[in-house]
Amino acid sequence: MDHTYRLVISCPDRVGIVARVSQFVAEHGGWLTEANYHADAESNWFFMRNEIRAESLKVSAQACREAFAPLAAEYGMHWALVDSAVKRKVVILASHASHCLADILHRWHSGELDCDIPCVISNHENLRSMVEWHGIPFEFVAIDPENKAPAHAEIMALAQRYEADCVVLARYMQIIQPEFCQAYAGRMINIHHSFLPSFIGANPYQKAFDRGVKLIGATCHYVTERLDEGPIIEQDVIRVSHRHSKDDLVRLGKDVEKSVLARALRNHLEDRVLVHGNKTVVFD
Amino acid sequence: MDHTYRLVISCPDRVGIVARVSQFVAEHGGWLTEANYHADAESNWFFMRNEIRAESLKVSAQACREAFAPLAAEYGMHWALVDSAVKRKVVILASHASHCLADILHRWHSGELDCDIPCVISNHENLRSMVEWHGIPFEFVAIDPENKAPAHAEIMALAQRYEADCVVLARYMQIIQPEFCQAYAGRMINIHHSFLPSFIGANPYQKAFDRGVKLIGATCHYVTERLDEGPIIEQDVIRVSHRHSKDDLVRLGKDVEKSVLARALRNHLEDRVLVHGNKTVVFD
Amino acid sequence: MDHTYRLVISCPDRVGIVARVSQFVAEHGGWLTEANYHADAESNWFFMRNEIRAESLKVSAQACREAFAPLAAEYGMHWALVDSAVKRKVVILASHASHCLADILHRWHSGELDCDIPCVISNHENLRSMVEWHGIPFEFVAIDPENKAPAHAEIMALAQRYEADCVVLARYMQIIQPEFCQAYAGRMINIHHSFLPSFIGANPYQKAFDRGVKLIGATCHYVTERLDEGPIIEQDVIRVSHRHSKDDLVRLGKDVEKSVLARALRNHLEDRVLVHGNKTVVFD
Amino acid sequence: MDHTYRLVISCPDRVGIVARVSQFVAEHGGWLTEANYHADAESNWFFMRNEIRAESLKVSAQACREAFAPLAAEYGMHWALVDSAVKRKVVILASHASHCLADILHRWHSGELDCDIPCVISNHENLRSMVEWHGIPFEFVAIDPENKAPAHAEIMALAQRYEADCVVLARYMQIIQPEFCQAYAGRMINIHHSFLPSFIGANPYQKAFDRGVKLIGATCHYVTERLDEGPIIEQDVIRVSHRHSKDDLVRLGKDVEKSVLARALRNHLEDRVLVHGNKTVVFD
Repeated sequence: MDHTYRLVISCPDRVGIVARVSQFVAEHGGWLTEANYHADAESNWFFMRNEIRAESLKVSAQACREAFAPLAAEYGMHWALVDSAVKRKVVILASHASHCLADILHRWHSGELDCDIPCVISNHENLRSMVEWHGIPFEFVAIDPENKAPAHAEIMALAQRYEADCVVLARYMQIIQPEFCQAYAGRMINIHHSFLPSFIGANPYQKAFDRGVKLIGATCHYVTERLDEGPIIEQDVIRVSHRHSKDDLVRLGKDVEKSVLARALRNHLEDRVLVHGNKTVVFD
Repeated sequence: MDHTYRLVISCPDRVGIVARVSQFVAEHGGWLTEANYHADAESNWFFMRNEIRAESLKVSAQACREAFAPLAAEYGMHWALVDSAVKRKVVILASHASHCLADILHRWHSGELDCDIPCVISNHENLRSMVEWHGIPFEFVAIDPENKAPAHAEIMALAQRYEADCVVLARYMQIIQPEFCQAYAGRMINIHHSFLPSFIGANPYQKAFDRGVKLIGATCHYVTERLDEGPIIEQDVIRVSHRHSKDDLVRLGKDVEKSVLARALRNHLEDRVLVHGNKTVVFD
Repeated sequence: MDHTYRLVISCPDRVGIVARVSQFVAEHGGWLTEANYHADAESNWFFMRNEIRAESLKVSAQACREAFAPLAAEYGMHWALVDSAVKRKVVILASHASHCLADILHRWHSGELDCDIPCVISNHENLRSMVEWHGIPFEFVAIDPENKAPAHAEIMALAQRYEADCVVLARYMQIIQPEFCQAYAGRMINIHHSFLPSFIGANPYQKAFDRGVKLIGATCHYVTERLDEGPIIEQDVIRVSHRHSKDDLVRLGKDVEKSVLARALRNHLEDRVLVHGNKTVVFD
Repeated sequence: MDHTYRLVISCPDRVGIVARVSQFVAEHGGWLTEANYHADAESNWFFMRNEIRAESLKVSAQACREAFAPLAAEYGMHWALVDSAVKRKVVILASHASHCLADILHRWHSGELDCDIPCVISNHENLRSMVEWHGIPFEFVAIDPENKAPAHAEIMALAQRYEADCVVLARYMQIIQPEFCQAYAGRMINIHHSFLPSFIGANPYQKAFDRGVKLIGATCHYVTERLDEGPIIEQDVIRVSHRHSKDDLVRLGKDVEKSVLARALRNHLEDRVLVHGNKTVVFD
């Protein structure tokens, strides 16, 4: 992958933002390899992502950030200048099911996913060997169904000890406590095994089977305190029919879950996902 | 289209049904052009559709029905022997939006849809010219928002006067009274402009826009007394993004609505849809 | 639809283009409602589409064009400033099949397609009534299979007499003579009934059936002198199986053809399609 | 998975086949859990797949085969009665790319794929560790580019020594010699990284990129002596755009390749794929 800086911005919309920002980039010699803009008419909000070849910039990333700060302040921007060479640390939480975890690990191992995975945390032991084969620490934390709080606290502490930039719930199946949600707002990604907002909560495949839907789906979203109601990053579906049992739905759904999660995670890691209210702008 | 008889059956599952039915067909010289079977393990129910070349049968359809009745009784079958040469009468109810109606009319006019359309009924006048150009009577029934019952009764009476075998709600946008639902149970088809069970009820595109979903859909189902909860025949989706306004969703959704309705109606007219409880078996 | 100006540009890539162009737009008070950029790394070519609210510009479109010309010359740009209020004239060529034509006419009639349709030209009479019901002139030109040149010349002359900005071949099924291709380079759109480059030329559904493919498709492309080899604008597919006869493929393919053509034509009319060599950039 | 027998038949079509076969099944107490039929009108050929609960049959599989043989001979059937409890041996040939192999291994390891994998053969060493972690022997066979015949012979001998029932080319990238093709006719499965018949042969992603297609695909087919022209089992596509480089196509294509291969292999292992001429009937 090429070394780039990503200048990601959102702010109230007005005339001249693109001109000012691209003027700034050009003044510093920045060669744009990709640029995306979106103006949300309803909220009058503006979104922008500029990808700049690192070697074209005449100054360091840090100097660039300092130079940009006054402009950002003038326009009331939420913004970041991200260096693509600094790999994000993605801590994965898994449960018993292996498909999403195996998929992420293989993409990472084959060089497709540009991040570090400092550890995998699970409340089951069955995936330890697979994780450790990849050279990644596996942290087992038993969850006492009668008293989940200590385990939840330990898991959050582990994520922080491993300096997670991003937390992925790879079919983790546990409700996340509010403090953990807040600490990783916009950085904690869940894959839900239904086409949300259909079949919120537990057992979505059973519900889909009972309703007799002709497509099943999966939804990747940022985790908020409201279960399965966070900003949606990506969704997809697959066709099913009367021939499929509930177990078939579970099996077919796995393929959708893992591809939806992979696409969402990739876009998150490339700073292509901007959250605005309870919705996302995805510059893919 | 070839002239065929369709022997459609559902009954409690047990050993030997296929043998008995296909033995019956073979004894009468029936040449199967298509045959479909489904055993539902959960409810232990059996479904079957046999399509038989009409000219291969040594007896008339009526004689065939009489000969089959004892076997059907023995197995406790719901069944029908349908003559493909007898066109079904499909009465269409429309409102102001033209896309689903225009799509059905064009398919019918170009010979793709094998049915008669004895009339179109609407509570708006704007589609009269389009309907009449196709040589189909257009019945306008004004609906008084303060007192809808008389109009509803008149519409049901019209459907019956035109001897409707099937009623299609082509974005009709009115709630159907219980008597009408009951009179056309399993024969009244609605197209709902969302991927049910998401966004039941009014304004699904607004709801989809507000939720920030990444796919929008449409659902075709048989109408029951419970709004948007009848057996689903067909569903499909289309990808959307942050770039799409609510009006874009409405526009993009039209294409999904009309193709979902067209597929469902075609399958219904070819006796490929068998209702079982609140679900369907679709032998497509 | 909102009144906008579309500033569409392609040129050799270098640092600062976005800055200069967006500076120009901002200086004239232009409020961007949408902006798209693409840098093609392989050819080192840059593509840009800016959509500007008409009422935000302080000068007329013509004045704006004159002011932009020196900048465009400096960067070696191919460019246009298009006024969305000036409807393009789309002349449609059809043959015997009605599905693509009916689909375009309905979209136009219901206000979904923003253009004028000054006439439909066909070598068959069967679609005259449908076209004329829409209030559009229908021009019949008989084609002598032994001597096609005079008819082809007449058709091209008709397109020019009706001042076509764009020509759509809605399953026209005749090879276009080179002069006609050249006169409408980048403005003549064909829908081919296969997933190109599979099954170039005649009878693609028969070829697809014989090959036993599991998906069939349609391709919309700009017409060039090389049959079915022009720049692709849009493609899509639909699933088929062993159950489908060749006639089923023809029927199912119609739905793909018309939706692919509709999407491509809409993007063309909104100046979202930029041709570069034998490929397209589509800012949708 | 339930223990079943699969009675799979193809033969010239005539009246009464279903009756005779289902009569035979019923006489032996066979409870059908699934039954599929297809009559190919063009070739007048009939296809049938019956899945029978093992415990419902009053006789052994072998006795059942002997009893069925006279009936099969009378109708000129190609047929097999397959015991689902006897796992097929699938030998996988791989090259350097890991995605298809890793996907198959994970599906097998998690119990989704009902087969044995006696060994993986490769002309590269890089995947040895991954294969061996799954407890599967890894056989390395170096291929001399100047003299491939000895290696090819060794690979075929290995497949036979491991008693392969089925050979999967998981992006193997070598042309298979005719004897190997013939020895595994209808049992050797290849995944080709294009939507065949587009882009036959080498470098399909480069060709797709150069042609500017808007969808890329993958095709799973039985291997014959004619490169990339064997009977197609399954195909799928994914949307791409001008934003995607050739490397992006390679990356995106991987996901299509592995899902297409997984679906095709599963259907093959469940005896759902019947070859007829150069086409397949897939009872999925």
